[in-house]
Amino acid sequence: MQLDQSTIYSAVADFLREDLGRGDITSQATVRGGTRGRGKFLIKQDCVLCGLEIAEAVFVVLDPDIRMEAYHYDGDNLSSGTVFANIEGLATTLLAGERTALNLVQRLSGIATLTKAFADKVEGTRAKIIDTRKTTPGLRMLEKYAVSVGGGVNHRFGLDDGVLIKDNHIALAGGVRRAIELARQTAHHLLKIEVEVANQAQLREALTAKADVIMLDNLKPEAVRECVKMIREAAPNTLIEASGGVTLSTVRELAECEVDLISVGAITHSATAIDISLKIAPI
Amino acid sequence: MQLDQSTIYSAVADFLREDLGRGDITSQATVRGGTRGRGKFLIKQDCVLCGLEIAEAVFVVLDPDIRMEAYHYDGDNLSSGTVFANIEGLATTLLAGERTALNLVQRLSGIATLTKAFADKVEGTRAKIIDTRKTTPGLRMLEKYAVSVGGGVNHRFGLDDGVLIKDNHIALAGGVRRAIELARQTAHHLLKIEVEVANQAQLREALTAKADVIMLDNLKPEAVRECVKMIREAAPNTLIEASGGVTLSTVRELAECEVDLISVGAITHSATAIDISLKIAPI
Amino acid sequence: MQLDQSTIYSAVADFLREDLGRGDITSQATVRGGTRGRGKFLIKQDCVLCGLEIAEAVFVVLDPDIRMEAYHYDGDNLSSGTVFANIEGLATTLLAGERTALNLVQRLSGIATLTKAFADKVEGTRAKIIDTRKTTPGLRMLEKYAVSVGGGVNHRFGLDDGVLIKDNHIALAGGVRRAIELARQTAHHLLKIEVEVANQAQLREALTAKADVIMLDNLKPEAVRECVKMIREAAPNTLIEASGGVTLSTVRELAECEVDLISVGAITHSATAIDISLKIAPI
Amino acid sequence: MQLDQSTIYSAVADFLREDLGRGDITSQATVRGGTRGRGKFLIKQDCVLCGLEIAEAVFVVLDPDIRMEAYHYDGDNLSSGTVFANIEGLATTLLAGERTALNLVQRLSGIATLTKAFADKVEGTRAKIIDTRKTTPGLRMLEKYAVSVGGGVNHRFGLDDGVLIKDNHIALAGGVRRAIELARQTAHHLLKIEVEVANQAQLREALTAKADVIMLDNLKPEAVRECVKMIREAAPNTLIEASGGVTLSTVRELAECEVDLISVGAITHSATAIDISLKIAPI
Amino acid sequence: MQLDQSTIYSAVADFLREDLGRGDITSQATVRGGTRGRGKFLIKQDCVLCGLEIAEAVFVVLDPDIRMEAYHYDGDNLSSGTVFANIEGLATTLLAGERTALNLVQRLSGIATLTKAFADKVEGTRAKIIDTRKTTPGLRMLEKYAVSVGGGVNHRFGLDDGVLIKDNHIALAGGVRRAIELARQTAHHLLKIEVEVANQAQLREALTAKADVIMLDNLKPEAVRECVKMIREAAPNTLIEASGGVTLSTVRELAECEVDLISVGAITHSATAIDISLKIAPI
Amino acid sequence: MQLDQSTIYSAVADFLREDLGRGDITSQATVRGGTRGRGKFLIKQDCVLCGLEIAEAVFVVLDPDIRMEAYHYDGDNLSSGTVFANIEGLATTLLAGERTALNLVQRLSGIATLTKAFADKVEGTRAKIIDTRKTTPGLRMLEKYAVSVGGGVNHRFGLDDGVLIKDNHIALAGGVRRAIELARQTAHHLLKIEVEVANQAQLREALTAKADVIMLDNLKPEAVRECVKMIREAAPNTLIEASGGVTLSTVRELAECEVDLISVGAITHSATAIDISLKIAPI
Repeated sequence: MQLDQSTIYSAVADFLREDLGRGDITSQATVRGGTRGRGKFLIKQDCVLCGLEIAEAVFVVLDPDIRMEAYHYDGDNLSSGTVFANIEGLATTLLAGERTALNLVQRLSGIATLTKAFADKVEGTRAKIIDTRKTTPGLRMLEKYAVSVGGGVNHRFGLDDGVLIKDNHIALAGGVRRAIELARQTAHHLLKIEVEVANQAQLREALTAKADVIMLDNLKPEAVRECVKMIREAAPNTLIEASGGVTLSTVRELAECEVDLISVGAITHSATAIDISLKIAPI
Repeated sequence: MQLDQSTIYSAVADFLREDLGRGDITSQATVRGGTRGRGKFLIKQDCVLCGLEIAEAVFVVLDPDIRMEAYHYDGDNLSSGTVFANIEGLATTLLAGERTALNLVQRLSGIATLTKAFADKVEGTRAKIIDTRKTTPGLRMLEKYAVSVGGGVNHRFGLDDGVLIKDNHIALAGGVRRAIELARQTAHHLLKIEVEVANQAQLREALTAKADVIMLDNLKPEAVRECVKMIREAAPNTLIEASGGVTLSTVRELAECEVDLISVGAITHSATAIDISLKIAPI
Repeated sequence: MQLDQSTIYSAVADFLREDLGRGDITSQATVRGGTRGRGKFLIKQDCVLCGLEIAEAVFVVLDPDIRMEAYHYDGDNLSSGTVFANIEGLATTLLAGERTALNLVQRLSGIATLTKAFADKVEGTRAKIIDTRKTTPGLRMLEKYAVSVGGGVNHRFGLDDGVLIKDNHIALAGGVRRAIELARQTAHHLLKIEVEVANQAQLREALTAKADVIMLDNLKPEAVRECVKMIREAAPNTLIEASGGVTLSTVRELAECEVDLISVGAITHSATAIDISLKIAPI
Repeated sequence: MQLDQSTIYSAVADFLREDLGRGDITSQATVRGGTRGRGKFLIKQDCVLCGLEIAEAVFVVLDPDIRMEAYHYDGDNLSSGTVFANIEGLATTLLAGERTALNLVQRLSGIATLTKAFADKVEGTRAKIIDTRKTTPGLRMLEKYAVSVGGGVNHRFGLDDGVLIKDNHIALAGGVRRAIELARQTAHHLLKIEVEVANQAQLREALTAKADVIMLDNLKPEAVRECVKMIREAAPNTLIEASGGVTLSTVRELAECEVDLISVGAITHSATAIDISLKIAPI
Repeated sequence: MQLDQSTIYSAVADFLREDLGRGDITSQATVRGGTRGRGKFLIKQDCVLCGLEIAEAVFVVLDPDIRMEAYHYDGDNLSSGTVFANIEGLATTLLAGERTALNLVQRLSGIATLTKAFADKVEGTRAKIIDTRKTTPGLRMLEKYAVSVGGGVNHRFGLDDGVLIKDNHIALAGGVRRAIELARQTAHHLLKIEVEVANQAQLREALTAKADVIMLDNLKPEAVRECVKMIREAAPNTLIEASGGVTLSTVRELAECEVDLISVGAITHSATAIDISLKIAPI
Repeated sequence: MQLDQSTIYSAVADFLREDLGRGDITSQATVRGGTRGRGKFLIKQDCVLCGLEIAEAVFVVLDPDIRMEAYHYDGDNLSSGTVFANIEGLATTLLAGERTALNLVQRLSGIATLTKAFADKVEGTRAKIIDTRKTTPGLRMLEKYAVSVGGGVNHRFGLDDGVLIKDNHIALAGGVRRAIELARQTAHHLLKIEVEVANQAQLREALTAKADVIMLDNLKPEAVRECVKMIREAAPNTLIEASGGVTLSTVRELAECEVDLISVGAITHSATAIDISLKIAPI
């Protein structure tokens, strides 16, 4: 996916406001006005880099005259000890943006790195790792971008650009079939209908109602395999997504069940930050 | 710390906008208008609960007529399988807010739980676990609240409400002592001056310049012990903070060095989500 | 479609600000503070009513104590001379909101009425009248709602919730087939791919690339008929949309070509306002 | 009138957000990043052009490096088939802004064209065509600008920059004279007082109270003529406005009654869009 | 003039944000949650009270359950020692709003009091004290309201609701007459034209061009008297405003020159705060 | 203190919107489009200049091509008759920004000038003049900047970046000592605790509880002297602030009591505007 510049810039401005409040009093006090500095971004842990442009935006929002020179790009596999970019400008600007920039790159690189680990596990199968809406509130677009950088694919971006009928909808609509039919009447004609099924009875309803995409939720591998077989026979063009508590140890077996998509909430909700530092010196 | 209601409500409204976009098309299609539902919040992993009021705010922003009944509160240790709250209202409202509410409670409970794990490790020592500015951009106040719920204490909230002179400032100011002196001239009279030192030479300068708080950055336990001794002798009222890559395995040894505060970035930047579900049924 | 309350209220608040500026100086001057009034909404031209709730929102934003009593509802066919609602409250509030409320109801009723005229023309055929993105900037959701009230169906709501490959995309991508293939690689798996074709050569490419929906753009009825035949034979599940300068005189012939959807820009970009008045008297 | 640049830019940014949502997924998918395009704006219906700068703003908001070259200007009478401007830049930018730009130029040119038709009808009389507040909510300033481009003049811009006492005010104030007196006490000294009268009794009160401007509302031509005579005799400096359901067939007769201003709601509320296209090709 | 509620509430919310930042840490720390308090507003200097409703809004924005009981109202002359209102609610709310509320009432009462002093000086003459645009940025409407409470009248509210041709315009337009003529061509028909003149030559031009209002700028009383005579003879309906460095010692003599309006910048730009306190006790 | 550019620019944009509304109709009417002008900023009263950059920002927000040339800088003592800057650009821009720019510079120079008068009075003592939160709502940062330009120092910037326990807190907490202890438990470790005391009993409690800063509120000079003696003996590092109705006549005596800080509300709440004009001529 592509990140929209105005999305980045307006998000970053909000983030800076949160950290800066009425101003960076330590830097204003300790650094003489006009002092210029150069900072090095240093990776301290093997990772897939993600967020370079976003980090740059943090500083550019503070001062358009900042210059960043990158040696590596989003998606690169970097090993601990790599300097991936230099940045030059007013030292007070570098200091004011440092933490916000690092917080973003560390988190996004964490997500890209974990996604890559999952994607590597399923290599050679037809399955793709796909994200969920289990993203950090306020960071949906950035985190989905990190997933794509890590080799995953994106599911819908919000509740308004895709129809996904889940257990709660089924309970409230009165069954899988009824829910699918209602959705088809209302959704605009460019949207497919995906439905989550938890057992073969629900799956049969989904097939009868001609769901476009079927999500097998929280099924054991053998159950997944049977469901995949049923679907391929009944409706070979139907996409199959598997989901539910998928981990690095379980993802391969699931992929070998021949599903098309494996959604993994953990790649966004449980990625941990990559250790990255920004060392600034006067120039 | 106390969370300000208007902070919660305006953050939550932004988060909902991100997820809802032009509307929850699946729920609008599959659930008859006017259907009321009851949802149960179920913990699926032992944890310290955090974010109850914030979850409630998510639904209240969508519809003031939502009613949540809580059985447990922020800070409670819950074991997997506990239902901690029920929520009633229009089913479409419950569905529209479900993911945003869960994303928040899962993350905040993850932070509170990890903070509690660190706090438990240092029990009986004088050390307190303190957070950092390594929080998720946009969630600073919520995450700092989760730290306090988990038994940690809060460091400054932004760059404007505390003076903390770090390595980069020292490099740019031309030394520890000079940096402290400059800060004291500029900061208003209600602010203390904290300085990060990386070795005994810097520590001596900090003591000479009468820093109010000294952060021992990335020192081995034996070095920490020596520094603490030097500080207690020279300036017994000085607060001592230790920081740098602290983990659950290393925190106890550090605490036993008799420092006052141990800052742990991981409690915010590397907490993972607690598994929580919201099951909704018609009523 | 359903209109989201917060969408209505925030739009309406903007519209009021535009008209009120620093305040309604005429009403403040001429009406004694505290005077209450009752207003009658009177239709002066046969129409399909649309915008009742939106009109109410205009006044409620100004003063939550306003009470509107409706005798007719959105979608009702009303004849000239009908009073469709009464409204009571502070006279200065009624006066301040009058023009904004009328401007909205008049425009939306105009759209609903024109849509109904088109929908009536195609009755008995398989074709549905569908809207376009040729809506008034700032009123997209309200105008799409008016289309649905008038018996039309909605196309995608923006550039982000549907893939529609048009002539300009084809020119830039290097052909229909290439464009479809590129779109399928990038769009998330819940989105169908629609493509606009202007002749049989393009249609053949679209069929080869298995477009989910095909738009026949600006073709004569006989050409449409032939294309429909080709599509039904090659890919019977493909949806067919016809578009391009459709008028009340041409729509029926097009509908009889057995297309599924006929998109009509005129229902939003060229509907004219319905004459409606609000007469206010003291009570 | 002159349009303020910041008004244009902020309105246009809102309009783009409405259409783009999370991004133009079709263009991102089908057009290779970096592809540059050139678009031609083509008039497909005789019209008075209006909105050139506003269209340019749409693209400039998306990307400041866009270049538009205009061959014709706002106010020019163009015949069908005229290319009035070229635009060059990133193809994805041209595609993202296309619909919003066209929606604006089509509507504003529609208003300018209809205003011109009315203005042509009254040529040679003392009457000027003047607009009303019956504009599209959110587009007040743009539409008033289009009126001036089409040769009309502007009435007040909102409820706060002019006093216009209408039927509802008169009913609530207890008569024409009382309303005028109250308004004169309250309005600041740079504002004139206009009053709407529906018959000669009201007109006499208005003359007694020395209204600065008198609006003859919904009167037949003969009645208008008599009123004009009464006013010219009693108060020769009083401006006279005629209003009420004025059409292209009735406007001339009204103008020949020697009124100064004829207000026509239809020029804004019932103008239809001019057909204009933007054809984009790679360069 | 009347203050619009939404204007007050949104201004007050901004002001609170400025003072509160991330929260009132002193009150949160020192006052037990749930403690209720009662505060007394005490006047410590004779004054005209102004800003009661605005003070109330400060607290209501923080907590809708606050209750204020007023014993005096805007416009009342109060002597030092008067308690003009009581306020009850959560003690932390009272403390959080205290300073913002006092800052507003103190300033507005200062303006009302000074305006009253000027108004008293001109009693018995035809002159009214009128304000200027020399208001505090961000407080225009509130300060103009305070002027009206103090017995002054309001000039235009901004650059858009009145035409006032000043020395700079005259210099740029090329003379008084030309400026008036240009203004009359462009301003809408409900606006009068006021022009500032600095000598009799300019005054003659203004009379020739039939200015609706004439401002005598910075003239000595004898010169004012002569100009007034010239104007009354030539154009008896013309309003006359005198302006320029008017003080409490000079205003009476000016008023006796028979001008209609005397504009005094000092009533807004140089009013000083009235001493008012809010004493809070637990209940 | 340093003013943050983005703070200035966003404040100034709001202020312009307040004054301009829908546009500067007088200048648009009277000045030919494209006319360029040069304005001279002329001081008409001896003062300390303050607000140069802010004035420039007013014009730059309107048009980035404006050029200001300054001959004097913030903090300079200027005598009446000094031209401190020239400004060149489109004449309509100069006219549109004139009043807002002057309103700001006049007020800020007023504050700087009054602060300087107080600072001069205490020269040679250890006391510094310090501001309060008695600033104009919306102008907190600008006014605190003016204080620093005039030679004062800044107290906390809001309720969130300093702990100051005042009479109301003491009453609600149940005593000075209890309030201090509660504050120390809650405030983060970089904040000092200041407490206001009104008599020696309270002072003794404050000393027992080891307040970091003690404010002597509204005490007579002899009482202040005694308190200072008690504090210096008991806790020599404690900072001492004196406050309460300090005037130019009383400040020196207070300073000679050997307090460290004297807070003066009047420097912000009762400074009056300096007379400054902007004369614009065509170029």
